[in-house]
Amino acid sequence: MATSSLTYAIIGSGALGGYYGSRLAHAGARVHFLMHSDYDHVASQGLVAESMHGSVTLRPVNAYRSVADMPRCDVVIVGLKTTSNDLLPGLLPSVVKDDGVVLTLQNGLGAEDACAAVVGAERVMGGLCFLCSYKVGPGHIVQTRFDHIKLGEFSTRGVSTRMQRIAADFEAGGVRVQLAENLAAARWEKLVWNVPYNGLCAVLGVDCVALMQDAHGAALSRALMQEVVAGAKVVAGHAIAESFVEKMLENTRNMDAYKPSMQIDREMGRPMEVEAIYGEPVRRAERAGVCVPRMRMLYEQLSLVDALRPAGFIR
Amino acid sequence: MATSSLTYAIIGSGALGGYYGSRLAHAGARVHFLMHSDYDHVASQGLVAESMHGSVTLRPVNAYRSVADMPRCDVVIVGLKTTSNDLLPGLLPSVVKDDGVVLTLQNGLGAEDACAAVVGAERVMGGLCFLCSYKVGPGHIVQTRFDHIKLGEFSTRGVSTRMQRIAADFEAGGVRVQLAENLAAARWEKLVWNVPYNGLCAVLGVDCVALMQDAHGAALSRALMQEVVAGAKVVAGHAIAESFVEKMLENTRNMDAYKPSMQIDREMGRPMEVEAIYGEPVRRAERAGVCVPRMRMLYEQLSLVDALRPAGFIR
Repeated sequence: MATSSLTYAIIGSGALGGYYGSRLAHAGARVHFLMHSDYDHVASQGLVAESMHGSVTLRPVNAYRSVADMPRCDVVIVGLKTTSNDLLPGLLPSVVKDDGVVLTLQNGLGAEDACAAVVGAERVMGGLCFLCSYKVGPGHIVQTRFDHIKLGEFSTRGVSTRMQRIAADFEAGGVRVQLAENLAAARWEKLVWNVPYNGLCAVLGVDCVALMQDAHGAALSRALMQEVVAGAKVVAGHAIAESFVEKMLENTRNMDAYKPSMQIDREMGRPMEVEAIYGEPVRRAERAGVCVPRMRMLYEQLSLVDALRPAGFIR
Repeated sequence: MATSSLTYAIIGSGALGGYYGSRLAHAGARVHFLMHSDYDHVASQGLVAESMHGSVTLRPVNAYRSVADMPRCDVVIVGLKTTSNDLLPGLLPSVVKDDGVVLTLQNGLGAEDACAAVVGAERVMGGLCFLCSYKVGPGHIVQTRFDHIKLGEFSTRGVSTRMQRIAADFEAGGVRVQLAENLAAARWEKLVWNVPYNGLCAVLGVDCVALMQDAHGAALSRALMQEVVAGAKVVAGHAIAESFVEKMLENTRNMDAYKPSMQIDREMGRPMEVEAIYGEPVRRAERAGVCVPRMRMLYEQLSLVDALRPAGFIR
């Protein structure tokens, strides 16, 4: 097994960061994990990732309580939820090498901008994760389906050498990687699915497959997808084919019962990624003159739910 | 007390029909009640209406199990939920006099059309009820706030003699009546409040006062009201002032905790009046070329909830 020459830091070692970090480490890369509540457990028991690649226990783990203790790394992977992005200025500067890169694997739009504001746009890359994984206990992650990543540069178009090197490390760990020549286009394309299902399922409390069993649910999903398509065209200059919308609808109709992350977050009483998946896309579309009333309405509904939950007005 | 020369039939003697029927009867009008599940109870115990006018027990009650047993009346008041309007062809013809009138007190849009399809448009009037009342047990109604009615002709504009006679009977019972010269305009105006709050509260499971405590809830309420205003202008030729919208928002902000009927219907597992309050207004607006995306989205969401409830996918 070829060992990577790159060093990795995982900022946010949860269901996403912990999973990809363990795949990289399993393949021989040097990976350093920032841990929060799980530090003690992982330091003594290691990090367990059950996945379609089998069950892997990483032990010992290069785990840290604080970025101050971490070595500067070539690649800093951000696996936090976007709702914690106010922490980035305190986390990134000390852990990324001068010629290193911050790779944010976060949802929605705006994650690269948040990193760029801290380390500069040229040191930022983004990755779109097609992953189903859950943290089932301290230092214990279960991946159930998919794990592929679409990688792209933030400040330039095209395929860079560092993209290829990072992709090779992920692939050594069994994670399929696609190289996106246009990251913004890829992010809008991913929103075609995320916008209707995350929000509708979280607001209505119904999984996305049940939602598609009803004509009204299907009509609303399609209308929301079409708003994303309109946004992609104007904001990112990216034409998404009507057939892609139909494929997303059809795929969802044929899935097994599946709850999008935002629905699970609501059910678990955790913050929902409303700004990344709705606020930022809506603002970008509206600034560009694109009318996205359904996306905005879902944004307002979700923001309202988020605002009323702490006071107990709503669950 | 002057006794009315008009005879009344109440079709749907629930929280609304039962309340207004009891006010008319209390003032001396001859009122005949069609009863369903409450027949036996009311036949033996009478009809109790507690209200701001005091507690009134009507006994004996002219109660009937079937319209076939009822006398033809001058005024047939429809107090059914609009979700039962498929029953109207079987209910109205035998109970309304040839020169009588059907007065529908139902919510939303389309109730007069449904009656007109059965008895002819010239025999139809409509009333908008500003009423808070609940059926708390068999033959037992509690009214808590408001009871005024806005009455109007369906097939003509202006104030008719029969409007005035019916209004006099209601007012003898203590119910304040306004005479609307343009019923369609009045119905759209009432939707300004009903459209945002009924649907948002039912979808989100939050009362309308809590909803107004959050800026997103207020913004969404305003945007929905503005769509109704646009619909009113084009469909009914009725200009609703911006200040009316602001007044509705402000009134709601200053109410005590209040759940709109549709939210209560959802909580009680009863059918919601989705077509009357959303489907019909949305279709009329869209047919007239008015863009009402938020109303349509709420319509789709509510229809979805209604469709998924019987299968248990959603509560």
